[in-house]
Amino acid sequence: MSTTIAQRVEAIRKYLADNNLDAFLLPTADPHLGEYQPENAHRVTWLSGFHGENCMVVITKDTAGIFVDGRFTVQVKQQVPADIFQYLHINNDCHLNWTMDNLSAGARIAVDASLFGISWYKNAEKAFTGKGFEIVSLQENPVDLFWEDRPAAPSSAIELFQNAGQSSVEKRHLLAKRLQEKELDATLLTQPEDTNWLVNIRGSDIPYVRSVLSFGLFKNNGELELFIDTARLPEGFADHAGEGVNVYDITALFSVLPEKISADQRIQLDPAQTNAGLFNLLHDAGVSVVEDMNLCARARVCKNEKEIEGMKAAHIQDGIAMCRFLAWVDREVEAGNPNDEETLAAKLLEFRQGVEGFIAPSFPSISALGSNAAIVHYNHDPKNCRKLGSDGMYLIDSGGHYNNANGVSGTTDITRTIKVGNATDEERRMVTLVMRSHISLASARFMPGTTGVQLDTVTRQPMWKEGFNFDHGTGHGIGHFLSVHEFPPRINPSNNCGAMEPGMCVTNEPGFYKEDGFGIRLENVEVVREVTGTAASMLELEAITYTPFDKRLLVAEQMRDDEIEWLNNYHAQVFEKIAPSLNKQDKTWLEQATSPLTRG
Amino acid sequence: MSTTIAQRVEAIRKYLADNNLDAFLLPTADPHLGEYQPENAHRVTWLSGFHGENCMVVITKDTAGIFVDGRFTVQVKQQVPADIFQYLHINNDCHLNWTMDNLSAGARIAVDASLFGISWYKNAEKAFTGKGFEIVSLQENPVDLFWEDRPAAPSSAIELFQNAGQSSVEKRHLLAKRLQEKELDATLLTQPEDTNWLVNIRGSDIPYVRSVLSFGLFKNNGELELFIDTARLPEGFADHAGEGVNVYDITALFSVLPEKISADQRIQLDPAQTNAGLFNLLHDAGVSVVEDMNLCARARVCKNEKEIEGMKAAHIQDGIAMCRFLAWVDREVEAGNPNDEETLAAKLLEFRQGVEGFIAPSFPSISALGSNAAIVHYNHDPKNCRKLGSDGMYLIDSGGHYNNANGVSGTTDITRTIKVGNATDEERRMVTLVMRSHISLASARFMPGTTGVQLDTVTRQPMWKEGFNFDHGTGHGIGHFLSVHEFPPRINPSNNCGAMEPGMCVTNEPGFYKEDGFGIRLENVEVVREVTGTAASMLELEAITYTPFDKRLLVAEQMRDDEIEWLNNYHAQVFEKIAPSLNKQDKTWLEQATSPLTRG
Repeated sequence: MSTTIAQRVEAIRKYLADNNLDAFLLPTADPHLGEYQPENAHRVTWLSGFHGENCMVVITKDTAGIFVDGRFTVQVKQQVPADIFQYLHINNDCHLNWTMDNLSAGARIAVDASLFGISWYKNAEKAFTGKGFEIVSLQENPVDLFWEDRPAAPSSAIELFQNAGQSSVEKRHLLAKRLQEKELDATLLTQPEDTNWLVNIRGSDIPYVRSVLSFGLFKNNGELELFIDTARLPEGFADHAGEGVNVYDITALFSVLPEKISADQRIQLDPAQTNAGLFNLLHDAGVSVVEDMNLCARARVCKNEKEIEGMKAAHIQDGIAMCRFLAWVDREVEAGNPNDEETLAAKLLEFRQGVEGFIAPSFPSISALGSNAAIVHYNHDPKNCRKLGSDGMYLIDSGGHYNNANGVSGTTDITRTIKVGNATDEERRMVTLVMRSHISLASARFMPGTTGVQLDTVTRQPMWKEGFNFDHGTGHGIGHFLSVHEFPPRINPSNNCGAMEPGMCVTNEPGFYKEDGFGIRLENVEVVREVTGTAASMLELEAITYTPFDKRLLVAEQMRDDEIEWLNNYHAQVFEKIAPSLNKQDKTWLEQATSPLTRG
Repeated sequence: MSTTIAQRVEAIRKYLADNNLDAFLLPTADPHLGEYQPENAHRVTWLSGFHGENCMVVITKDTAGIFVDGRFTVQVKQQVPADIFQYLHINNDCHLNWTMDNLSAGARIAVDASLFGISWYKNAEKAFTGKGFEIVSLQENPVDLFWEDRPAAPSSAIELFQNAGQSSVEKRHLLAKRLQEKELDATLLTQPEDTNWLVNIRGSDIPYVRSVLSFGLFKNNGELELFIDTARLPEGFADHAGEGVNVYDITALFSVLPEKISADQRIQLDPAQTNAGLFNLLHDAGVSVVEDMNLCARARVCKNEKEIEGMKAAHIQDGIAMCRFLAWVDREVEAGNPNDEETLAAKLLEFRQGVEGFIAPSFPSISALGSNAAIVHYNHDPKNCRKLGSDGMYLIDSGGHYNNANGVSGTTDITRTIKVGNATDEERRMVTLVMRSHISLASARFMPGTTGVQLDTVTRQPMWKEGFNFDHGTGHGIGHFLSVHEFPPRINPSNNCGAMEPGMCVTNEPGFYKEDGFGIRLENVEVVREVTGTAASMLELEAITYTPFDKRLLVAEQMRDDEIEWLNNYHAQVFEKIAPSLNKQDKTWLEQATSPLTRG
């Protein structure tokens, strides 16, 4: 392994020397800057051996560094040869300064700008040129020149999506109006979720996301210039998408896009979602670039009635699988069978695969026993993980994509923390507090205009009153058979992305983590809807996840009447929706799991 | 009256003609742009006869307009002659457009820039020049040339304030550090509250505020250039303020300030608090103007221990007066005496005047019976107002300034809504909801960094859950024997002014208003303090107002256990603090008023 890595690093160094360059910076990213990348974009892995996320590699003529975050400090040492790479921390060590410290004045630092965000590029350019270095934006990625067994580009089947509830023509008509209102000529679409939503297609080009990789330039006359793998477009696509969609092969993006824009245009892009290569292209063409939050996403995330129906149907299917799984876990615990985090996660996937409409997991499950649950982003090692038997609690955070012709269509994300042994008083107290925070948001009502930052504070009140907090956001948007993380909305302490609007789907997932002790998270998906019949206009959140919370971990005496009432009403609804699909044994389990919580 | 007004308007028109000008714009403001103005700044009243707030007068060669807000649409017709002025609405009618519509192209529009804010001036300049008009910044205010019986400038005694808890030298040392951190050479102080706080003086130059009018240029070496009425500075001022305070007469501000600044300096000012005349002066001198929130205010509003002790002592005095008043009202209602809104307000002032340390009211009392309380900014007419007898509820919003050598030192602001007749079920339901919203904030805890916008949402949850809202902020900062409205903090739905910090004093005043029906507001002052002994750092609000809420208007069955517990604890504290200072009759009343609220 180390020999191969050494050869690859040397190949890059030769490229640098041949091209009068002194360093090369490579991040784990593809040109969409999304959460997941296709295999042919795993350049960091090819070059360093590292398989984790959120990494930056720096190669100079005589040294190399790999920057990873706290989740990967152990893993990097196992995967990346220490004789070639220096291990560094991506937050504590500044990779820009480290690069410059290892170069002589005047050095030329090469990057593939299409893999970096705009703000990174601007910062790097300022830092480098400010100290007499030069940043060189390459026209090719040197890794691609030497990567012999590089995986092919994604080739998933493109589906003409039938459960959208709105035609592409109609969506484009409404979005064009928004552009006109803002006096924009066009908006640049860099997120596959946007282009896929806009022309009503789906695919599986990258893990856990139901999209086909593509870019778009959407114009204020309703036309879309769509950059996609044209060879894969199925018969009937033109009719399905309707008039005004012009397709080009995605590989021609950087050559064709300049022909579609002109210096007199105002084009909006989202600086957080656009790579510096595209930004530089627009900038060089003299376009007036308007940096603003993704306009297409703002339309997309407010789901229509058909999409909300599909989400609810998907959550009923998911609830059936979850209830079967939780009933099974109780039986396994009772029987004393030594399941571990891996077999538990596998069994849940099996239950999901057993319900109609299930397509794929929406993200890697977090299956964590005991103290492992205190690691928020815990990723169990299938060969060496905790077993049932010695821990009081088990945390399972998972979800699925669902889609079929019966109107089941959507994406789920659920976390439950359940009793699998002797839970301590401290554990039960903290589960009760997290439950109360969950209910605080679930039962909130708010005026139009209220933001996720405001709702985050409402959520945390029960925990804050007892002096506890959790160090992650309360919730994120969730897509409609697209991606499990959608932006906007966000419910968190600071990242304000505008008001909560009807039709948005969002998770409600407060937690509590005691290092080396235990971890708790209780998560439902909720949809924002209007309250009817009140004096002032109000919005509220309707829970569309249908799975019981574990009452055995709740201390009723530490809950308020209205909180117990919320929980009992929720559980009654879960029973009503899920019971008809369960066998007798599981139905009996659900009856008990959803029976009213009472005091004393 | 009308003849005089006509003569004055004609004098301005002659001035315009003599100076080749076509229009003159005059707002109700002085150069500090504060809430209240001294009498010699009441130019709008002199010119138009109008006595209200928030007004703009426009005089052209052949027409005149007066722009007022919704509170004054009736009053303006009574006070301002219709044959001279056209009545307009300051929000619905754009005074800039109206001015231009009444002028010919190329007209020259005159203003006294020292009476306008920066953003108004920039907008007006853009609007006027964009349509071919010219804005002319006058060196003199024409009203002052013709105002023969103009009142003298304020002449209140300047007090060397002893209850500050921190010397001027120390305050300036700390503030200088903040400037150095921000790489600022100086900050421009335009609010008398800041200059008065910084050199530890007080006065009463303008109504309801305990300050001496003054400006300052505070430098990063700790020196203050203080512009003030030097003739009034008392003996010992130099020793009291300490080294580094250089005084100049306030009338010389515009001539001396240019000598104190230079083109190589970075000077911070708060654009919301600085007049355009001063801004233009700095701009013309080539200074790098840094527009940022008032730095001195951020230090001032976080009160030190001595200031907080003073505030608490002042609130005990105020509580004694309030309890005596409320007990008296109950007796008067019982006796059937026909007090009206004016006699009630006068009696409360009499009770305040009867306690040690009382100096003056901190704002005009709102004394409102029945449906009058539905008008948020109600101002009763002493000669024609509602009487006790036919209404169920009475709202009294009032406050005082307190100061003496025994450490009583601070400002109060309290609103109570009390039963004075047959309250309806609807009224009791809404009082209970407002009380629950008040308690929601009063019992909140929050992480450092939490803003007033976030806390506003926590406050409103009880009302929002039932579909009700109130159309004003939840709370404002309150000064320490300075002004009753202090910024920051603000607790409201949108106006974000940073995090809540320990030592800030803030009001908690949710309400509910039913037009032509009734009005409710329940207001305490609270101080932000750190919670001790919790796992995560937390802040909370300690109520420092000591006066019972009227239990007779609360429906215990509609309150949660924890809310009733908060109220009973609060009332126990009120009794403990106030009872020792009451006579037997009033103590009996307080005992009953603060006895525990119970259900059924």
